[in-house]
Amino acid sequence: MFSGTNLPRVGSYNINVVLSSIQAADGISRVEIAQQTGLTAQTVSVIVRRLIEQGIVQESGSLPSAGGKPRTTLRINPAAAYAVGIHFDPIGLSMVVVDMMGQELADSRQEISPGLDPEALIAQAAGSALSLLADLGIPRERVLGVGAACPGPIDQSQGLVISPPRRDRWTEVPIKRLLEQHIGFDVIIDNDANAAAIGERWSGHGRATSDFAFLYLGTGVGGGIFLSNHIYRGVSLNAGEFGHIVVEPNGAPCYCGNRGCVEAMCSPAAIVKEVHAQLALGQASKLALQYQEDPGSVDHTAICLAAVEFDFVARRVIDRVAEYLADCAVIIANALDVELLIIGGRAIAHVAEIYRDKMTEFLQTRPLARKTHTMRVAISDMANDGAALGAASLVLHTAYAPNAAHLTRV
Amino acid sequence: MFSGTNLPRVGSYNINVVLSSIQAADGISRVEIAQQTGLTAQTVSVIVRRLIEQGIVQESGSLPSAGGKPRTTLRINPAAAYAVGIHFDPIGLSMVVVDMMGQELADSRQEISPGLDPEALIAQAAGSALSLLADLGIPRERVLGVGAACPGPIDQSQGLVISPPRRDRWTEVPIKRLLEQHIGFDVIIDNDANAAAIGERWSGHGRATSDFAFLYLGTGVGGGIFLSNHIYRGVSLNAGEFGHIVVEPNGAPCYCGNRGCVEAMCSPAAIVKEVHAQLALGQASKLALQYQEDPGSVDHTAICLAAVEFDFVARRVIDRVAEYLADCAVIIANALDVELLIIGGRAIAHVAEIYRDKMTEFLQTRPLARKTHTMRVAISDMANDGAALGAASLVLHTAYAPNAAHLTRV
Repeated sequence: MFSGTNLPRVGSYNINVVLSSIQAADGISRVEIAQQTGLTAQTVSVIVRRLIEQGIVQESGSLPSAGGKPRTTLRINPAAAYAVGIHFDPIGLSMVVVDMMGQELADSRQEISPGLDPEALIAQAAGSALSLLADLGIPRERVLGVGAACPGPIDQSQGLVISPPRRDRWTEVPIKRLLEQHIGFDVIIDNDANAAAIGERWSGHGRATSDFAFLYLGTGVGGGIFLSNHIYRGVSLNAGEFGHIVVEPNGAPCYCGNRGCVEAMCSPAAIVKEVHAQLALGQASKLALQYQEDPGSVDHTAICLAAVEFDFVARRVIDRVAEYLADCAVIIANALDVELLIIGGRAIAHVAEIYRDKMTEFLQTRPLARKTHTMRVAISDMANDGAALGAASLVLHTAYAPNAAHLTRV
Repeated sequence: MFSGTNLPRVGSYNINVVLSSIQAADGISRVEIAQQTGLTAQTVSVIVRRLIEQGIVQESGSLPSAGGKPRTTLRINPAAAYAVGIHFDPIGLSMVVVDMMGQELADSRQEISPGLDPEALIAQAAGSALSLLADLGIPRERVLGVGAACPGPIDQSQGLVISPPRRDRWTEVPIKRLLEQHIGFDVIIDNDANAAAIGERWSGHGRATSDFAFLYLGTGVGGGIFLSNHIYRGVSLNAGEFGHIVVEPNGAPCYCGNRGCVEAMCSPAAIVKEVHAQLALGQASKLALQYQEDPGSVDHTAICLAAVEFDFVARRVIDRVAEYLADCAVIIANALDVELLIIGGRAIAHVAEIYRDKMTEFLQTRPLARKTHTMRVAISDMANDGAALGAASLVLHTAYAPNAAHLTRV
């Protein structure tokens, strides 16, 4: 059922509208904020005064004005608040500390042993994050919170990780509660792909558009959907699982229950398996000798580098993967009709252009509505720490992004 | 950029919130409206008084109250406004007239000759609609507008139909302008699947949920997406084109540019072609004799009826189609994570249960997040006039549904 709205809700929504204007601009005046947001000059003035009193916004310099009197420039105080982002990836632990503007101040990355107990790993992550904050000299009261990015599916409302792939011991781990106990700050969790998408919105290609999809290629393949300036999570918070869209009905089986889904055909593990199979058959390749001497050294990175140099086997496999990803992009365009598709995650290193170009080619020739609109493809600038930086952005986004849904929630 | 909100916008939003409460209930009191919507008793009282003055809401009878004094019951005045819905289907013209409650008062259906000029067809539709209104004795000033449902892709903002499939002469037809000229009422256009989805929201399975997907099986295959109580249209108004999701990469080519998309494998024409091919090979079937005598009589309806009676060829083809539709349902679940998938359109007649059961089976075993949430499948109750009734609902929806986006549009 619909619910009505009222003045207090409108007030807190408008505060975040003003804050977003200041955050997006590189110096902005009160008059410009009023023009951009449609709020009255008086409303803007009252809100800005409160934000300055709270130390969130600073007056810094002035802009010349047509009318003569110079206008005072407003900027976010980057030191007003900080957030921590932690990415619990199956093969490593990444974390970052960002300021109120979403700028990264420090990061750390560590390998984790596969058999580590979830609570031990969470304790280790908390310890590392507290060290990072201490090294930066950030006082506890300035820390807005901690964002934790985990492989999906997750239950965000309960703070649970629900039997993620490749982690048998992580069934229904209450990561929010455990991490809060160990770190002493509020924790928000989300799946890694959603977190990376929010990172794009705060400091990547998503800044300029309100509607985009994000395809995340990490150890697995996930996705995120941004509609009307907010992540679209779906009824059980698991929307955007593009990695489990079937692109090859006779392909390899996946733990998800399908055969030949994007993850089964395009993940680093799938690529390595296919190249090894072709090398074992004796196909001509620059990697052949290396494979004979040490098969393990022909890993995803080696294959991607060889593909860029047009090695026969590596390039053929990567080109086929690019076609599967392009098929997936066409499905996203047909289903969601968004402005932009961003590809990111560690697994696009070296081959991102190959993937982007094939996706662009398919998007120009196959979606039904391509004559009306062609979805663009952009490569994330944050391939390495996308999910960790995104998890930190999630904290800022939750606290500060205007959310029209809050206007009408009972 | 985000924009602020203000009191006039809040006021008009809250009017529609109250109206929706009354529309959804079978008699409701002012106190109940306040409880449901979170609005104050005074706000509800002011809004209701205005709606009664405008003749949109009626006081009808009273409900007993715990406190003693009986509460006056409010209902929508069904005769307050009327809407016309017209479905321009490639093989026929359907239209309905509905009252303010979305109830169908009259309908008409006529075949159209394939070579008819678009403007002549639009003039014919306008004439038929005006006759229906005259027969019902509805005064012109009570007609809120006309909704026109057309095969996609369309350009809703410009009121254009853009080269729909199977209609070579309908390239960039300004249907909104032409229909307004001939009929003399405001016209809103949408694609047939979106229109049918809106119909489900107003008077079908979608009444009870704010988030659902709709798979429309007519001459072609389309779809609609309802998120947070509103149709999600996408950046170019062409979201939800589920019919062009590829389910068989080696399948038949489609005009959309893909091979083996849902429409290429599951449309009535595809089903007829496949059954005819198998009968031509001499496969054992109850339809074999009929096919020899008059191939044209083995049409989609005959095949669906034979499939229900377990004819070997017809059932095998329909079962395979059901699997393709179930693959598509799994993709919708993985991408959108909505509560419910409604299937509708004329092409589900007789075989709807076969399709629903296979979709339900796949949805319980294949989407990644099935352990957290399983998407339900429901069969539309409006298989015949879904798009025409939906087009009429579109007029009511545009006028009366609360739209939080309007709170914040500059």
